[in-house]
Amino acid sequence: MAVPRATPTEESCTLSPTNDPWLLTPGPLTTSPEVKDAMLHDVGSRDTDFIALNARIRERLLRIVDGEARCTTVPLQGSGTFVVEAMLTTFLPPDGRLLILINGAYGWRMAKICQVAGLSYTTLEWPEDTPVDPDAVARKLEEEPHVTHVAVVHCETTSGVLNPIERVAEVVARRGRRLLIDSMSAFGALPLSAEQIAFDAVVASSNKCLEGVPGFGFCIADREALSNCQGNASSLSLDLFEQWTAMEGNGQWRFTPPTHALLAFDRALDAFEAEGGQEGRGGRYRENCRILVDGMRRLGFQTLLADEVQAPIIVTFHKPADERFDFDAFYDALRARGFVIYPGKLTVADSFRIGCIGQVGPQQMHHVLEAIERTLHNMQVVERAPKA
Amino acid sequence: MAVPRATPTEESCTLSPTNDPWLLTPGPLTTSPEVKDAMLHDVGSRDTDFIALNARIRERLLRIVDGEARCTTVPLQGSGTFVVEAMLTTFLPPDGRLLILINGAYGWRMAKICQVAGLSYTTLEWPEDTPVDPDAVARKLEEEPHVTHVAVVHCETTSGVLNPIERVAEVVARRGRRLLIDSMSAFGALPLSAEQIAFDAVVASSNKCLEGVPGFGFCIADREALSNCQGNASSLSLDLFEQWTAMEGNGQWRFTPPTHALLAFDRALDAFEAEGGQEGRGGRYRENCRILVDGMRRLGFQTLLADEVQAPIIVTFHKPADERFDFDAFYDALRARGFVIYPGKLTVADSFRIGCIGQVGPQQMHHVLEAIERTLHNMQVVERAPKA
Repeated sequence: MAVPRATPTEESCTLSPTNDPWLLTPGPLTTSPEVKDAMLHDVGSRDTDFIALNARIRERLLRIVDGEARCTTVPLQGSGTFVVEAMLTTFLPPDGRLLILINGAYGWRMAKICQVAGLSYTTLEWPEDTPVDPDAVARKLEEEPHVTHVAVVHCETTSGVLNPIERVAEVVARRGRRLLIDSMSAFGALPLSAEQIAFDAVVASSNKCLEGVPGFGFCIADREALSNCQGNASSLSLDLFEQWTAMEGNGQWRFTPPTHALLAFDRALDAFEAEGGQEGRGGRYRENCRILVDGMRRLGFQTLLADEVQAPIIVTFHKPADERFDFDAFYDALRARGFVIYPGKLTVADSFRIGCIGQVGPQQMHHVLEAIERTLHNMQVVERAPKA
Repeated sequence: MAVPRATPTEESCTLSPTNDPWLLTPGPLTTSPEVKDAMLHDVGSRDTDFIALNARIRERLLRIVDGEARCTTVPLQGSGTFVVEAMLTTFLPPDGRLLILINGAYGWRMAKICQVAGLSYTTLEWPEDTPVDPDAVARKLEEEPHVTHVAVVHCETTSGVLNPIERVAEVVARRGRRLLIDSMSAFGALPLSAEQIAFDAVVASSNKCLEGVPGFGFCIADREALSNCQGNASSLSLDLFEQWTAMEGNGQWRFTPPTHALLAFDRALDAFEAEGGQEGRGGRYRENCRILVDGMRRLGFQTLLADEVQAPIIVTFHKPADERFDFDAFYDALRARGFVIYPGKLTVADSFRIGCIGQVGPQQMHHVLEAIERTLHNMQVVERAPKA
């Protein structure tokens, strides 16, 4: 009953090996056939082989960020937001106060999490096309002596902007505060080293740059910091301290894990390592991004971001000024040609986004550019730059 | 790259069609090859087809419990415990008080959830081999006028005992209180009708009697009751009111859903309906349970529960008195013969459990009995009844 794989003829070459449109989104992404094939098995969540698989995954994730010496991996069921919430609510002590650096929707989401959970927090905000500014963070920390922790988004998927977490980490550490990083869409593709960056916790998920399927997230936590977090969380399910100690105890997840997603993830990590780890994976994504941005500019589009602050994860393009451009029609036409792109999420300007991540390479980037060119031609969209 | 399916020769007939041991556990379970094959595709979580799939799943789940008229389905990422916590913390208002009926670990887990979340609650407790008693619930509700809600576990997987939720619901409704049901391991296999049982919410998960893969749970909620729950939850991720209103708004999940698990679940619902729905599914499980219990008794084992309170989901057997019986060795030997069973979870007696649910039928039940008989023979376990 396996799905027939597409033969790469001219007709079908814009479909993935499992005959699906390519997902040029921030995730779920196109994964390899091998990763999906790993899910063709049912395994017992308390069985020995599965326990070994989880230990292996936790260890491999640590190695990606040089975390073996001081960190531990705590996986958690659910989407990326679940593990972001788990990080904030587990690491903030009752008398803690969080400074959230915000330059997009995922920063705002952290503020919302704190508001709902009743945590003490304050924010520092930048426009969506601007990286967070470490100097402003330094000044804010001087002004706010009660702030104990700082939270930052590594790559803000709202725009695709890369935040300078190394310099933020320096500023935060120098002032004796603790850093919590949402590296959801960057983990595994952009450099991040526990030996060089002083963080208490970093979170990411199974279905981003490590190219697994969605189902769980994980926290790379400083062991000492995490060991002081007992009793902080106000949720049984999202308590990373309890999740950690239970898993250290018997190697099992506290509650039913997404077994198939974990089988897939272990296979995804094989491919990640075979590709040369973060450098190899990041290199492919940078090349994808370069082809995409160059090609789109050649077609007349403008990117939201300057190249120097653009992460090679997802690119925001301004909506063309031409009134014949209709995003829904553009989306549908590209989908019919085998590519799923992503709507914009900017509050300030009309835009759309195209992702560079997942099991895609130069060929798919060239193909999507061709598909875009043909679509614009059919839509008679001449003026591709945004309104002045 | 599809996994070769086992040919049913004498050697391999104790393995599943994907060459895995049969999972005779409370879940994750053995699912059909078709269900797993559905996961061989990557789909965009905001794409039209996926939106339609989610609407279809929500509708089909409603139909299983006659919920179309008054209920809605709210799916939630994570394990069953996540959606139990989401139900309790979303439905309990700030001035509410919960009475939790406890006769096993899953009742205790609800108490733990309330304790961690700071909800007001009280408990009523029974031994693990005894169903909850509606008359005692009635008396407790008279004594505790501040109790607004009552929570009960449908089938307590700790022992396998069936709780009389119909009579509990009557008692609760007659006293003007609201009922919350954890039907995790019973939903789809045991009768449960929104037209006959006055509940505010019922929760279950993807990987139990509906025979999908793990990754999400769902709440069948009374629409009017849920519409009064805004602002109750202290977790962004686990807020069923927000999850519901967002999904009603655009048909999408608020946060990344486990897309592959949902593809599998839609396929699992096809099989569920083809099998005759709850009656067909429950009938197969009852037959599985009957074969298992009869066979184990013939081998000399004793069940924890009397037949009249045994749900056809999972059966608890007393550990044999014979000192040559070692559970770990027994487990390993059965696993080598193609069957994964489950350890006991009783606080009062040494035991082990064997599940009757998942994509298994009479053949597997007969085979596991043969495997148990051979294993006991090899272990020279003569006295299979428990210590007096």
